[in-house]
Amino acid sequence: MIGRLNHIAIAVPDIAAASRLYQGTLGAEVSAPEKLPEHGVTVVFITLPNTKIELLEPLGEASPIARFLDKNPDGGIHHVCYEVEDIGAARDWLVTSGARVLGSGEPKIGAHGKPVLFLHPKDFNGALIELEQA
Amino acid sequence: MIGRLNHIAIAVPDIAAASRLYQGTLGAEVSAPEKLPEHGVTVVFITLPNTKIELLEPLGEASPIARFLDKNPDGGIHHVCYEVEDIGAARDWLVTSGARVLGSGEPKIGAHGKPVLFLHPKDFNGALIELEQA
Repeated sequence: MIGRLNHIAIAVPDIAAASRLYQGTLGAEVSAPEKLPEHGVTVVFITLPNTKIELLEPLGEASPIARFLDKNPDGGIHHVCYEVEDIGAARDWLVTSGARVLGSGEPKIGAHGKPVLFLHPKDFNGALIELEQA
Repeated sequence: MIGRLNHIAIAVPDIAAASRLYQGTLGAEVSAPEKLPEHGVTVVFITLPNTKIELLEPLGEASPIARFLDKNPDGGIHHVCYEVEDIGAARDWLVTSGARVLGSGEPKIGAHGKPVLFLHPKDFNGALIELEQA
């Protein structure tokens, strides 16, 4: 079912400093920061030859990464995103398999404008997994 | 400097159960487990179209992932590995930039038989980064 690794998301407390680190120290191709208020994050894309890294900084009062940064003030690897062909079919199969989908259980439109859902980390060895219909 | 994402490593308490989950529930291509006593882990490779995931279970008394699993009993995303062309040049540049290399500071032969080094997560937004000479 899971296809390409779409991205790895890293939560950071200071996206300007993190961008300088990835661009300067690690020599990567780093985008300008983009505010996504409807998702509660500011995002920077790091383009690697085979996938991308997304740096996420909390934006606004109800950011979904605020609690993670409270627990991990330096930041940390927040989630991995795999592509699937059909998010509805994936959701149905996962629920049948006993895996928990976060939130309402319905796919939402994610930060790339495509349908996504998140799986409960307790059901996947502590790893937060996002599925995106590619 | 950093090139392809070589792999994401996920530490798991039970690699047989985790393999069933990735193969059965997530429908991924999963290898047989391989014991690497000199690295203190049993590893399973999950092949995605553009990169791979490595599941790691502690092996032996001095496993480098034992403490991580003490803190995260369900498991979790442990590190990301980026490829570099010249690990010696990468190390010299990183040290000049003020980043800390873990251990002796000298590259070691990693689980794929290639020179690797690990960077201090405190210097990279809480993310443990492995560099591998591809």
